[in-house]
Amino acid sequence: MTPSLEVLDIDPKPTLNPYSVNSIKNEDGDKNDLVLKVFRCLIADLCEQFKGGHPGGAMGMAAIGVALWKYVMRFSPRNPSYFNRDRFVLSNGHTCLFQYTFMHLVGYDNMTLDQLKSYHSKRVDSLCPGHPEIEHEGIEVTTGPLGQGVANAVGLAMASKHLAAIYNQPGFPVVDNMTWCMIGDACLQEGVALEAISLAGHWKLNNLAIIYDNNQITCDGSVDLANTEDVNGKMRASGWNVIDVFDGVFDVNGILEALITSRASDKPTFVNVRTIIGVGSAVANNAKAHGAAFGSEAVANMKKSFGMDPEAHFVIPDTVYEYFHEVRSRGARYEANWNSLVASYAKSHPQLAREFNLRVRGKMLDDWSKYIPSKESFPTGPTPSRKSAGIVCNPLAQNLKNFMVGTADLSPSVNMIWKDKVDFQNPELKTACGINGDYSGRYIHWGIREHAMASISNGLAAFNRGTILPITSTFFIFYIYAAAGIRMGALQGLHQIHIATHDSIGTGEDGPTHQPIALPSLYRSMPNLLYIRPCDTEEVAGAFIAALNATSTPSIISLSRQNLPQYPAHTSRDGVQLGAYVFSEQTGAEVTLIGVGAEMVFAVETRDILAKEYGIKARIVSFPCQRLFDQQSREYQQEVLQYRADRPIVVIEAFAINGWERYADAGVSMSSFGKSLPGGTAYEHFGFDGKVIAPKVKALVEKVRKEGVRCLRGNFRDLNGIMGYGFEH
Amino acid sequence: MTPSLEVLDIDPKPTLNPYSVNSIKNEDGDKNDLVLKVFRCLIADLCEQFKGGHPGGAMGMAAIGVALWKYVMRFSPRNPSYFNRDRFVLSNGHTCLFQYTFMHLVGYDNMTLDQLKSYHSKRVDSLCPGHPEIEHEGIEVTTGPLGQGVANAVGLAMASKHLAAIYNQPGFPVVDNMTWCMIGDACLQEGVALEAISLAGHWKLNNLAIIYDNNQITCDGSVDLANTEDVNGKMRASGWNVIDVFDGVFDVNGILEALITSRASDKPTFVNVRTIIGVGSAVANNAKAHGAAFGSEAVANMKKSFGMDPEAHFVIPDTVYEYFHEVRSRGARYEANWNSLVASYAKSHPQLAREFNLRVRGKMLDDWSKYIPSKESFPTGPTPSRKSAGIVCNPLAQNLKNFMVGTADLSPSVNMIWKDKVDFQNPELKTACGINGDYSGRYIHWGIREHAMASISNGLAAFNRGTILPITSTFFIFYIYAAAGIRMGALQGLHQIHIATHDSIGTGEDGPTHQPIALPSLYRSMPNLLYIRPCDTEEVAGAFIAALNATSTPSIISLSRQNLPQYPAHTSRDGVQLGAYVFSEQTGAEVTLIGVGAEMVFAVETRDILAKEYGIKARIVSFPCQRLFDQQSREYQQEVLQYRADRPIVVIEAFAINGWERYADAGVSMSSFGKSLPGGTAYEHFGFDGKVIAPKVKALVEKVRKEGVRCLRGNFRDLNGIMGYGFEH
Repeated sequence: MTPSLEVLDIDPKPTLNPYSVNSIKNEDGDKNDLVLKVFRCLIADLCEQFKGGHPGGAMGMAAIGVALWKYVMRFSPRNPSYFNRDRFVLSNGHTCLFQYTFMHLVGYDNMTLDQLKSYHSKRVDSLCPGHPEIEHEGIEVTTGPLGQGVANAVGLAMASKHLAAIYNQPGFPVVDNMTWCMIGDACLQEGVALEAISLAGHWKLNNLAIIYDNNQITCDGSVDLANTEDVNGKMRASGWNVIDVFDGVFDVNGILEALITSRASDKPTFVNVRTIIGVGSAVANNAKAHGAAFGSEAVANMKKSFGMDPEAHFVIPDTVYEYFHEVRSRGARYEANWNSLVASYAKSHPQLAREFNLRVRGKMLDDWSKYIPSKESFPTGPTPSRKSAGIVCNPLAQNLKNFMVGTADLSPSVNMIWKDKVDFQNPELKTACGINGDYSGRYIHWGIREHAMASISNGLAAFNRGTILPITSTFFIFYIYAAAGIRMGALQGLHQIHIATHDSIGTGEDGPTHQPIALPSLYRSMPNLLYIRPCDTEEVAGAFIAALNATSTPSIISLSRQNLPQYPAHTSRDGVQLGAYVFSEQTGAEVTLIGVGAEMVFAVETRDILAKEYGIKARIVSFPCQRLFDQQSREYQQEVLQYRADRPIVVIEAFAINGWERYADAGVSMSSFGKSLPGGTAYEHFGFDGKVIAPKVKALVEKVRKEGVRCLRGNFRDLNGIMGYGFEH
Repeated sequence: MTPSLEVLDIDPKPTLNPYSVNSIKNEDGDKNDLVLKVFRCLIADLCEQFKGGHPGGAMGMAAIGVALWKYVMRFSPRNPSYFNRDRFVLSNGHTCLFQYTFMHLVGYDNMTLDQLKSYHSKRVDSLCPGHPEIEHEGIEVTTGPLGQGVANAVGLAMASKHLAAIYNQPGFPVVDNMTWCMIGDACLQEGVALEAISLAGHWKLNNLAIIYDNNQITCDGSVDLANTEDVNGKMRASGWNVIDVFDGVFDVNGILEALITSRASDKPTFVNVRTIIGVGSAVANNAKAHGAAFGSEAVANMKKSFGMDPEAHFVIPDTVYEYFHEVRSRGARYEANWNSLVASYAKSHPQLAREFNLRVRGKMLDDWSKYIPSKESFPTGPTPSRKSAGIVCNPLAQNLKNFMVGTADLSPSVNMIWKDKVDFQNPELKTACGINGDYSGRYIHWGIREHAMASISNGLAAFNRGTILPITSTFFIFYIYAAAGIRMGALQGLHQIHIATHDSIGTGEDGPTHQPIALPSLYRSMPNLLYIRPCDTEEVAGAFIAALNATSTPSIISLSRQNLPQYPAHTSRDGVQLGAYVFSEQTGAEVTLIGVGAEMVFAVETRDILAKEYGIKARIVSFPCQRLFDQQSREYQQEVLQYRADRPIVVIEAFAINGWERYADAGVSMSSFGKSLPGGTAYEHFGFDGKVIAPKVKALVEKVRKEGVRCLRGNFRDLNGIMGYGFEH
């Protein structure tokens, strides 16, 4: 039996809310007024206690908060992780007290008044950090760096749209939540938000609303100092529905009407709400209200003008709690109704429901390991590792619906397309402009928007941990555009894989703009991120295995444009899991060469020339991932690197050397930008050539024969002589 | 005597061009047609020779190029650096053959046919790299990473507007050049371009035109795959004038009319030109035309269809050269006229002209060194180094017109405002919305657009080297948004100073989103960039001196939010120039502590506790800049670090350790993200506290007493134990 919507209390849009707009006006007008005053004084008090924080925005947005938390948002305070909840993103994360305080008022269990007061305190267990953090119940994504939240919200809305397209059935809207994204003036200026806005319009994500706290004030003063464009016009041109609310300070009903309309829109909606920063305070409508406490006298004056007791602090009358009282029970009802909907769904659509429940629990839909091809199946001739990545990833993407794979407009270069892939697209585009795809599609054309690609992917991954695994792809150097987004993924422990091709000077003719030198240093240093640089197809398989196992960590897999020799007798997917391993052992070796990724070929060349020309024996360590190696036991590390007083270690990699000094005594590296030359010629130009490297290593070995490795301490040598540094002692 | 415009042939807009639109149509129609065919075949041939490159865009844009280079642009091929030339930016830099080929046709001396043929060759001295490079005559900025060029063009137009506001006098338009920026579909998707577009509209830069090669094809296929917005509508809402050209493939006249109109606009102009990628080839209007040669047979077929000899390659008939013949002489006339205008200007306005000529020659208008305050004038009590930066920089900015200082909306935090500063603004905003400032202003409100701030600053600096010194500012972590722009500044050797405040976990309550950990690794690794982290006001002075002396290098000066002790008896501006220096010497020292920036305080604390509690003597090295230290002699390096077998070196810095291993044997560092706590508490939480560090150093010293420093090789220790790694041997 198909349950009716009425029975389930999963209300049709837009009459979801228990109150009609008019009834609120009549019954709640006075209460609204009191709640707004109490809320605003509370924010001022919370900032006053430690003389810091961001009061102004939160105060200005109070009426928006009432509309959202009391009326519009579907959520359950007693179970903040209830799957089909509306998602709320505070992109202007510095106004976090706005969210924390409403969470307290509507009864999130952990958000006690005591916790609220921990804002800006020394409490290590505070749930109220200076910006919202995903680790805490009820927070969907960590925000703070401006613009990111907009992109995250687009990702959350995509995730919902996508799951709905796959799993919803007539009468069974098992995924139909809305994403609400609160922004300030700043978010509308950041490029990452502008990219994401463009995509949301393109995809027609009508389950997304941006609520713009339009107070026209930023840190420097009036927004007019730096922005005088027609914001609504831009949003409309970007494919958004625009609704204006002219009194956002007091008119809860007006806001409510706009939000209810948003839920029924056929496009993403931009609700432009005029507010006043720090409203009611002496610094209302002034940049001073943004990021500093008002001072105790000013707070007292504000309370007086509100008709409240200037001496009383953190006052929340019972009537205010009562005002929000129903939210918890309504939330419990939403949750219960959804549970019962899913239970009926399981009866009507058992197979789909089984899969859906796995997704809800964040499980992979199948054992991914069986789709990783065996070493025997790999090409034995020269192969670009970007092609290897396709060989490994395409079967995974084809077979595992968890995978959503996309590219910043480099489909022909990154090889991430699998057989019969379907694009994630607005299905209306088929008739409108012949673009195939629909919301069930799992291949994403991000356009040339690397930053949004990474930051929207954070939203995709954050929708429900494990439900969607975003794979992004572009040339490695263009991940510098996405760095702020990738960092936010690492900070939030989101599972993602970034496919970074064309990763060295070997990229060739495109020249120095396209040849990364310093970027690996950023990603190797970044906490909770794996930067993995495999040297052949077997190591690419290993890189994917490592990245798939690291479920709370994003990974970057760094790949070559150019052909690389394959080393089936030497390389090992298991070795990759350990970060580094012995690629070729050699009794009596006088030097250890570290080979990395696309430049492994030069380590092998050097070893062979050293043996043939100079009678010097060398061993080679393959070193695809520093972070993984650092996690191994000391015993294993010593087994691999075998530090000895008579044997130097030389790393060969065409990036900046910074960080390799931890493992090696000398290196062949890059300290200048690259050059536009054919790939092989570019390598030669910068001395990456066994014939050039071998005599330099020979000289080093001879020095160490005489003086021991200790002569190299404080004397790290760039054997290319480009980055001459160090001294003898 | 004031010369008339007519005499000078500095034509009033828009009748600048020697041909009226109609006369071109009548006289040049057939020739245009031939030129377009010859050009398109030449591009195909150039890509065919080495089977690579980007033919399609360049071919599609041919008619735009004719309009620009033959008719519209003011420039002088025989002197590509003539000061008042129009600037041309190829933001879609992969179509570089477009620019190179027109440069050849109009007679740039160095751009011979032989050079053209070096595209994608192994020639190290090629003037035709895969993307345009600023080092080569006639190239205004290096482009390639998409979107950057748009921002650069905004900077070039700003520079021109600014200089015109200061130096132009009635009858003496000594600076009145136009900036033309060619873009593809991709540039309109990148956030950095969207940020810059918004600013250009805000500033009403009517000396800027973007020409949009609207071929609706990107690498993945149709633009509709990822972008279906109303581009013209967005541009209009952003304050731009929009002109459509519906036949951009053949209609040189239509394009010309649009470009001439652009020059007369009161707003920046967006010329939307419909073209066909790879027009005339078998892959016309297809993504395959973008980034690969067509194949010799396809090229032959194309030539046949054009009525040209399929066997002949690189054919440029004399009539084509003749067609462009007049460009050189007209350019020479522009140049001569401008010279004579400036000569008359010098007579009428001698003082202004003297200054103007210094700017033209790229000179600072005064000796900057005299404006750096003396150590004696500095505060002696605790001072945040961001405040120190104001103390040092504000007098420079006040007195030297070369300085243009801006902030990404953090004026109250970064302290870069000097007395009586005037904002760079569209002067019409004064009446429109009460915003003060005009084009002569030198303080820039960038809004919350870090990426555009950096990339537009590249344009400001590239307008004419030395004429304008851009100073940007924001919190250090937000330079991660700007990384792609900063990298382009370093690659181009542009002089800039980036003021990066709130640079560590000491920033405090704002939490991990605002606390950089890995970012210093990027900037310390980046070629041609100085990342300088001073520890007190005297070192801040040293950092500015280093940054000002590095005229072909951008610098980042990394500063604290929080109070730092001042060390007038120890710190030295001269020491900063050397990258590192002895902060406090100690006879019989058993350990060297490296103190850096805001964490110097912990090195000093540790030294004192080691002495008092454990009787262990320690020396301290202050180490504000790795790159500068690497440039010193070995003797100096040894003098500072004094490597000895019985004395370990320990670095204390609250960033990722990566790279310090080059200098130190152990470190106290960060390997996780930070935490939202008050600054002092955050430091304590992560073990940055002399009382915690000293016993760890003591244990290290005791180990070295027994086993010597060699026991630490391959065993770099994070004394915080966070990043445990390494092994004994």
